[in-house]
Order: sequence, then C-alpha cells, then structure tokens
Amino acid sequence: MYHNDFYTPEVHGPYEMIGIGRLDLENGEVIENCELAVATRGELNEAKDNAILIPTWFTGTHQAWLESYIGPEHALNPEKYFIVIVNQIGNGLSTSPHNTDDESIAMSKFPFVSIGDDVVAQERLLREHFGVTELFAVVGGSMGAQQTYEWAVRFPDKVKRAAPIAGTAQNTPHDYLFTQVLMDAVTSDPGFNDGEYGSHEDVMEGLKRHARVWAIMGLSTEWWKQERWRALELESRDQAVREFLEPTFAALDPNSLIAMGRKWQYGDVARLRGDDLAAALGQITAKVFVMPISEDMFFPARDCAAEAELIPNAELRVIEDIAGHFALFNFEPTYMEQIDRHLGELFAS
Amino acid sequence: MYHNDFYTPEVHGPYEMIGIGRLDLENGEVIENCELAVATRGELNEAKDNAILIPTWFTGTHQAWLESYIGPEHALNPEKYFIVIVNQIGNGLSTSPHNTDDESIAMSKFPFVSIGDDVVAQERLLREHFGVTELFAVVGGSMGAQQTYEWAVRFPDKVKRAAPIAGTAQNTPHDYLFTQVLMDAVTSDPGFNDGEYGSHEDVMEGLKRHARVWAIMGLSTEWWKQERWRALELESRDQAVREFLEPTFAALDPNSLIAMGRKWQYGDVARLRGDDLAAALGQITAKVFVMPISEDMFFPARDCAAEAELIPNAELRVIEDIAGHFALFNFEPTYMEQIDRHLGELFAS
Repeated sequence: MYHNDFYTPEVHGPYEMIGIGRLDLENGEVIENCELAVATRGELNEAKDNAILIPTWFTGTHQAWLESYIGPEHALNPEKYFIVIVNQIGNGLSTSPHNTDDESIAMSKFPFVSIGDDVVAQERLLREHFGVTELFAVVGGSMGAQQTYEWAVRFPDKVKRAAPIAGTAQNTPHDYLFTQVLMDAVTSDPGFNDGEYGSHEDVMEGLKRHARVWAIMGLSTEWWKQERWRALELESRDQAVREFLEPTFAALDPNSLIAMGRKWQYGDVARLRGDDLAAALGQITAKVFVMPISEDMFFPARDCAAEAELIPNAELRVIEDIAGHFALFNFEPTYMEQIDRHLGELFAS
Repeated sequence: MYHNDFYTPEVHGPYEMIGIGRLDLENGEVIENCELAVATRGELNEAKDNAILIPTWFTGTHQAWLESYIGPEHALNPEKYFIVIVNQIGNGLSTSPHNTDDESIAMSKFPFVSIGDDVVAQERLLREHFGVTELFAVVGGSMGAQQTYEWAVRFPDKVKRAAPIAGTAQNTPHDYLFTQVLMDAVTSDPGFNDGEYGSHEDVMEGLKRHARVWAIMGLSTEWWKQERWRALELESRDQAVREFLEPTFAALDPNSLIAMGRKWQYGDVARLRGDDLAAALGQITAKVFVMPISEDMFFPARDCAAEAELIPNAELRVIEDIAGHFALFNFEPTYMEQIDRHLGELFAS
C-alpha cells in the first residue's frame, strides 16, 4: 500500500466507495472486502427501469465518462436515465493492488480478477445497493465493451440494450499479444521488483515505455501523419509523446496496469458456454449496437463485425474516427456526435 | 567484438566481404575501412546494363532473397540479370558494431549510419568493384525500399527501374515511434549495458521482448486470428511466439538492431531537396512500381499510395497478403506469384 495522488477525488472528482462484501473470484481466489468506486448521475425512476450501467476501460475511471459522454445534451442524459459508472476492480480506485488494506492481496499478491468477476460484482452492487435488477442499457468502451458483452451473455434477462464500443466479446489472439507487450514494458523495469516497488515513481522508465507502446497502437498511423496532436494544443510529435502520453501513463500504478492487462487478455464470453462463441453470443436477448472505431489498430472493425454476425439482435455501427482506439477520449470534434446519434437511436428502440 | 554464430556463412551461405575503403558518413563521422557483405547471382553482360541491386531490410540479409525471390522461375532471374545483394551496413554481416576490428567504432561506439550512407557505399561498390554505373533495377523491401527510394532520388540517371516493396521514401511519424518501441525493448534490458554487453546472450530478455513487439506489428491482426501460423507447422499462438519469433530475434546482435533501427527512423529522401518531399520524389526518372502490402500494420498502403502520387512515372501495385509486413518472408503461397508478376511487368517495361 502506498499513496498515489492520481487516485483521489482531487483528480477524479467525487465518487463513492461502496463495499459489496466478499467476492469469490472465478479462479478460486477471494477478495474478502471488495469495494467499488462508483459515480452516479440522474435518478432511478419508480419503475426502476431507467438505469444505465457504464463499466470502465483500461486505465480509465468514471471521470472520462462524466467529462465527455454524460449530460443533458448527450444521449446519456441524466435527466432521463439513472447512470451508474462503476470503476473496474484493480483500476486504482475500486479495490486495487496499491490501495487495499488487506495485506493478503496487496501489491504483487493481488489475485487474477476476470471480466466476469467485475460483472458479478456490478450485478450485486446494482441489486443490493441500488435495488436495480434490470438495466435499460449497458454502455462500455474497450475493456468496458468486454464487460458489456459479459453482462449481455451472463445476464440476458437483465440487459435490454447494449452498446459495446471499440471492444470485443472474445479477446483476439493479436490483442492478447498486444497486451503482453504493454505489460512487458512495465514489468521489465528493474524498479518494478516483481510488483513490490515502493511507489509508482520507482517504475517511471517502464511506465514511459508503456506509454510509447500506446503511442503506436492507441492512436492510428494516420492520426500521427496528419499531426492531429495539434488539436490537443501540442506542437510536435515528440512533445505529444513526452508531455502528453508519457506523463499520462507515468502517473498510474504499475500493478494496476498489470491487473487490468491480465483481465483484458482473458476476456472471453465463450467460456460461459463451453468455449462456443456462437452459442454464447446467440443467447443475447438485448438489442445490441456493435460500435467499433474505424481506425482502431487492435480492435479492428472487422473483428467486431464478425461478432455482430453472431448476435441475434445486433447492428454494426462503425464510428469513423482518425484517432483510432483513443477516439474514446473524444479528441476529434466529430466523435461525440456519432456516439450520441447511435446511442440515441439504441435508447429509442 | 564478440563471436555470434548467426552471422556466419554456415548460417547464411557463402558471401563475399568487399572493402570499399573509407566511408565518410552523412553526420560527419567516419568508417575508416567499410566492408560490405555481398552475394551475387548471374553474370554482368557486355553492355553492363543488366545489373539489379537488392539492398536488405531490418535484420535481413542476402539469404532471404536467395531463398525465396531469386531463380530461373522468378522475375529476378539470374539467367537474364546480374543480381547483386548488398547487406546493409550494421546488419551484422557488413561492417557492424559487433564484428569490426576498428575499436573506434566497435559496439556502443558505432556511428550513426544513414540510408544515404548505405546508398553511397553501394554506388561505390558497384562502380569500383563491378564496373556497374547503371542499374537495370533496384528492388528492396522495407528498409530495402527506403534504400531503393534513396537510390532513385539521389542517382536518378543511374536507376532505370525501381521496386520499393513495403516501405516508404519518407519515414512516417508513426514508424518513427514504432521503431523507438522496438529499440526500447532491447536497450531497457540491464544486460544491454549501454551497448557494452559481452555477448547477445546477455540481452536475451530484451531480444525476446523485441520479438514480441514484432509479433503484434510485423504480422497482422488477421494473420493471428486465422491462425496462419499453422502454415509454418506451428501448433499454437504461444508456440509461434516462443519457438519461432523469440528464437529468430534472440539470435541477433543487439547493437546491430539499434544501428538499423536508428537508420530506419531517419530514412527520408526529402532531406536531399531541402526537406521538400514532392521535389525529391519529382526528380525520379526511373519507372517505379510502388508495392505496399495490404495488411501491413506500419507501412500502410495509403502511405505508399500518397508517395506514388508524387513520382512522375510510378504505378501503385498493392500486394494482397494476410501476413502483413512479414509477407516479405514469403509465408503465404499467394505472395511470390504477385511479386513475380509485378516485377516481371516492371522489368519488361
């Protein structure tokens, strides 16, 4: 346990820590006192049928959603919906390697948490804490899309609509290898010390290398070519790396990145139906808008399109965006309009 | 200087070491006694107008060309052409950090060699050693394509035809960053010791990480998805990484990878014409077939197409191949037929 300034309300705005008790994990391990960091907007209606769940992406928190996606001018309108953003386990805000006071799971001892474990935890949170047993929609990007698919397959009766953005139901072999490269960059830093560092600053070089891997995969070849960093008020490619990407990732907790990276690697709804992806996706009853991003380097649209084919009530809605996967951060002025248009249509159906 | 088994005729087949004397480098440094490792096939005709030059790619040697591309059944037919394959400086066979007996440039002291330096060296070799002052064609893949463009821009009167495969005349910002990630993987290994390791085996972990970066960028998302490693008689994704990619790169000399990586980063014909890419490409008189590979993750076809637009006598010939950049290794049965068809047409023009 150590203090990391990044994971505080000062940086992320207010959120609530909600205990859901003992969480038995898919692999047999246990989190005795699992706490989820939660932010909500809007109010649950009397029928309790207006709740939208948003799970978070790799390194992401509730903050990105509040800043860009949620508001009366957006499809995710808190005047109509009760919006619950749940930070994934291990993301640094919910129970995580660096913030838990349970020594048995601290730092390098943090157990393997699966996408399924997060969804089980979220279902319990919604039911026991908010009295929500049916979701108007689940909306998530990247690892949030993995959780969205997990919800729709695991709890088909509870999910009316689902919008997985820039993510897959079954992690691809390429993505597995990509995530390994991301983790290699961190764990190869001698300062990582097998997860038993004194603070994230001991792992600074590894975290910066990790950022540079994101530079080539999170953004697209064309984003760099067209110098779209100018829209972020950056003045050069190298400044974009050194003053934007590297500091962004260098602030994070290394064990948190590893916990999330491993979770991402093994995201796969097929395991819920004997490794049969078609059977798993075939049991989804939600209306699903599958929303890949056109220039995504590692969740290519064709992979998402192939999964959409296996879902009974799905439509493919490709988001055209030059930023690639990091389009999720709402860099381009044409991004949010597309998200709002598709989500608006999904919510109206 | 240390002995590395990989860089021997036992592994690469016969090649000749040809000294070209003192090479003054673009950045002001010097290689006092520059030796190029050269393999040839076929005979120079009396008119001395049937010579084809092939420069090598990152980590590549003459061997890949001899094994797959050259023969009486191929467009690169030694019964018609005098084919000269020149290993690039720093590739481990030509003068390189680990094999030079000039202490002033050994290991970490190896100077920055540019794409232009290689082309100057090759021009001297051809003229002084082989009496060749005009090239029927230059053909090169990846960093060999960078050298091919450099030839066509620097010596327009000497190059009749050019076939840059899977490479660009001006390195892209994304490629610059990608190459940095490749180099990071090696230099971050404490065993690298700023280039003063005892043998490449000291840098084994870094070389394996380097291999895993190639896994996600050298091959395509779709190659992994369709499990095309089966065609290489591998039995799983992880076996493809551990028993094919990792050993392939772990055999190499780390300083050699860095020398080539830096060279790649700065490949740019525009510097020959005051940083004006259009002016530089506009002075090419050769007939050029620009040949990107459809699934290439880091030399995307659109980048090559944009350059083709700037060359007076160029045609875009996209090679359709699921392997991505590593299509160059002739993994897929449909690859060489396309190469032969396009090169055959270029050579007949």
